Amino acid sequence: MSTVRRRPGRRPGSADTRGEILAAARKVFAEKGFDKATVRGIAREAQVDPALVHHYFSTKEGIFAAAMRLPLTPDLVFSTLNEGPREEIGRRLVTLMLRVTGDPETREPMIALVRSAMTHEQARAMFREFITNALLKRVGDELGVPHLRMEAAFSQMFGVLVARYVLRLEPMASADPEELVDLLAPTIQRYFTG
Amino acid sequence: MSTVRRRPGRRPGSADTRGEILAAARKVFAEKGFDKATVRGIAREAQVDPALVHHYFSTKEGIFAAAMRLPLTPDLVFSTLNEGPREEIGRRLVTLMLRVTGDPETREPMIALVRSAMTHEQARAMFREFITNALLKRVGDELGVPHLRMEAAFSQMFGVLVARYVLRLEPMASADPEELVDLLAPTIQRYFTG
Repeated sequence: MSTVRRRPGRRPGSADTRGEILAAARKVFAEKGFDKATVRGIAREAQVDPALVHHYFSTKEGIFAAAMRLPLTPDLVFSTLNEGPREEIGRRLVTLMLRVTGDPETREPMIALVRSAMTHEQARAMFREFITNALLKRVGDELGVPHLRMEAAFSQMFGVLVARYVLRLEPMASADPEELVDLLAPTIQRYFTG
Repeated sequence: MSTVRRRPGRRPGSADTRGEILAAARKVFAEKGFDKATVRGIAREAQVDPALVHHYFSTKEGIFAAAMRLPLTPDLVFSTLNEGPREEIGRRLVTLMLRVTGDPETREPMIALVRSAMTHEQARAMFREFITNALLKRVGDELGVPHLRMEAAFSQMFGVLVARYVLRLEPMASADPEELVDLLAPTIQRYFTG
């Protein structure tokens, strides 16, 4: 990997450069999907050195989450999974999901991504690749949980997100997070360890 | 309720009349939502007698399901719930859902409704009212299951439908229905009786 190097007229480390990398990333992910997009390709599109992209975002998953303004990154999921006993994974994951989606400002970008995945084939492929390869398969492999079970857990959480924030079914839309955690955690727990 | 009566130039009982009632119903449901739409209003829009609408479709729920070409009607759900022991409700419901969505021809209208509910406010209100008032609350009240639990069960099944048929996550998209029933039935069962 080459060293960080600035190109004519650019100041590495400026807010501008970071924003240009993210704009380039959105373009490259939309065109190539998540799997085929590369840090190198994003750097080329942004006309910066790949090392600068790594400097800002560490990984392709990190660039994707930042480009889509997703508050729920794979790293956050991993650290949540590992920060307590295995028999409470369900409770920790549901709590995390309700926390990051509780604030409209962090929720809206996720909802926007879900909406476009429902209606546009290109966005759908990108979302599918990110969810399966960057998130569910990695978590499943690390914990020894079959992929189908990971997808059942994802389906439950995805369905709750849509019912609560998009469809706004009542009483779910107004339910206390604590009540939802009590109701949903055993389901997620069973998929992980049952 | 007045008797079935034909109006000038119309033949009651013709395929045409039924189609015209359904077209009128789609218009009225889109404009008024599910709750505020009435059989009388649909009849007026179709320029037929309300008794003729009842003759074809029995209930407003029946008109809605036919107008949206939904294979999964509230009546079908009720008869499935009541056709066996209560401790196997989860298994029966998941089996029913995978059966009616297994055929692309019956699945596509449901997916179309879900898609438009995700993206258009009017379609969303109509979908929400139908799901909650015609389906989840009625089933919950009949079986004594709290509405929040009904919505948790709905969220799981909705999420699986989207993951399997819209996002096409693998391995879920290709999983055998039997394997999915084994995995998901305990979740639905717990929401109903756990």
